[in-house]
Amino acid sequence: MEDWSECLDVAVQVARRAGQPSSVRSCSGSQSAALVSGSSWVFHFEVSHIFNVGRFQVVSCAVNQEKQVSSKSTPTDLVTETDHQVEELIISTLRQKYPTHRFIGEESAAAGGRCELSDAPTWIIDPIDGTCNFVHSFPMVAVSIGFAVRRELEFGVIYHCFEGTLFTGRRGHGAFCDGVRLHVSRESEMSKALILTEIGAKRDPATLDVFLGNMRRILSAPTHGVRIVGSSTLALCQVASGAAEGYYQYGLHCWDIAAAAVIIREAGGCVMDTTGAPLDLMSRRVVAAGTPEIAESVLKLLQPIDYGRDDNDL
Amino acid sequence: MEDWSECLDVAVQVARRAGQPSSVRSCSGSQSAALVSGSSWVFHFEVSHIFNVGRFQVVSCAVNQEKQVSSKSTPTDLVTETDHQVEELIISTLRQKYPTHRFIGEESAAAGGRCELSDAPTWIIDPIDGTCNFVHSFPMVAVSIGFAVRRELEFGVIYHCFEGTLFTGRRGHGAFCDGVRLHVSRESEMSKALILTEIGAKRDPATLDVFLGNMRRILSAPTHGVRIVGSSTLALCQVASGAAEGYYQYGLHCWDIAAAAVIIREAGGCVMDTTGAPLDLMSRRVVAAGTPEIAESVLKLLQPIDYGRDDNDL
Repeated sequence: MEDWSECLDVAVQVARRAGQPSSVRSCSGSQSAALVSGSSWVFHFEVSHIFNVGRFQVVSCAVNQEKQVSSKSTPTDLVTETDHQVEELIISTLRQKYPTHRFIGEESAAAGGRCELSDAPTWIIDPIDGTCNFVHSFPMVAVSIGFAVRRELEFGVIYHCFEGTLFTGRRGHGAFCDGVRLHVSRESEMSKALILTEIGAKRDPATLDVFLGNMRRILSAPTHGVRIVGSSTLALCQVASGAAEGYYQYGLHCWDIAAAAVIIREAGGCVMDTTGAPLDLMSRRVVAAGTPEIAESVLKLLQPIDYGRDDNDL
Repeated sequence: MEDWSECLDVAVQVARRAGQPSSVRSCSGSQSAALVSGSSWVFHFEVSHIFNVGRFQVVSCAVNQEKQVSSKSTPTDLVTETDHQVEELIISTLRQKYPTHRFIGEESAAAGGRCELSDAPTWIIDPIDGTCNFVHSFPMVAVSIGFAVRRELEFGVIYHCFEGTLFTGRRGHGAFCDGVRLHVSRESEMSKALILTEIGAKRDPATLDVFLGNMRRILSAPTHGVRIVGSSTLALCQVASGAAEGYYQYGLHCWDIAAAAVIIREAGGCVMDTTGAPLDLMSRRVVAAGTPEIAESVLKLLQPIDYGRDDNDL
């Protein structure tokens, strides 16, 4: 069996580089936003200040920024120039180092690139998970890089851009946040569980009926509560770190799940299809939990929302 | 007009003290949770590590802690020993310094204390906002201290326990996060807004009908999205910092709104009753927004949920 630890090290470097600039610019309060007006590399600018001036100086700077926002599949499926630029940075760096590897990226896929998992070593990349949050400077935004070989996930790297924390998981070697080992919650009772979900891009009446019906059944299970943070990968990291017992979503993509799936499994949790079948990365649906009991309790309460498949072959 | 800046300074000190210990204990990974087993002062322990070992070491320690959890008005209205202890710490400190002042505190009220706003200088305290999050170590937990004189809010202090950031607002003197001035979003179009809400403690079918109906109308307005973070005060701080355009909730209490209301107003935003009338601190309902246009758009979409009043006199 090959050791993919060198690739993991490279993924960590490129995720940090995507989230941090090589040079530090100055920002002294909200007035200084004018200093970077016109810059399309907003993401780098913002993240550069996390460690230098604190999160809310970042926010107050970013609030005054005009971001280039457009939409993809639906009016609420947002994308910015920064999404494209960060993905290009990540893929070009990795392709140079690993010219024979394949790449699945959110923005490449939106531009018509094939979204297909083969036996070849494949990088699965979300340059900005939580684009809507990013547009608003709502502080839950991440870079996510997963890696699969022979269709099996080998490792995942998730960089929380506003906090500067790094989550990693490697098959058989555990999951970590900034070097500290992660463990899922061992809670098995739904009545004591905190459950996370995301709304998804489709907002037509029929989809909202099912989405809100699912939320209603989860709340009535009963549970302690439901949270919606706007970033699938960071919500999944909360499950990995034991701060929530379960997660479910219809409408996410393979690049939202790939890295997080390894991290949750290596933290002792489970990730599966909403039917209870093994996870299908391309199926656009997932249930994750600290324990099989919570996963089963959640999936029994769900009615499906059809978002099609990422690979469009079924 | 009296200058209440000394009281604000004291509030800042006591909020920080409630969230930070006087001595630092050691924690080196999840195994070390055993070191503090049996300690009921979990909150202090956790927060002590934010600056020392990073957030997720905090989480991994706390995950293994048994917390003393009980419920109040409903099975999902949680309270821990730490809520009581933090409130006692805050009120006893303030009462010693200001013996003639009055106090409204979440846990004192739950124990039958009067919840009444008079002309006297009154401190309005939530020792742990986001108790359910705290129970799960989900990282959105705050200490909130508001101060009113002649029934008018003079200042508010909110300490974000997992991040160690401090929000302050003083009437006529602006709002700040760790010294950086806060400004609300100037967005006036609902279709470009990010809206925050909280679920509330009541989960009976009729209440859930109205809660989910409101969420459906907000999502269909349309908006960019809805987020639920589990802490009213920290959600309101996101509105103050411009990271979300609006907030609405039925079922919160005066101690959830008092400090945040000053902070949002001083950041340039508006806080009002869900009917559009001026804010009634005791009414257990609120709409807050960066602009009057967003506030009006939100409140027009809401159907009320009756949670009674904090002062029980109407």
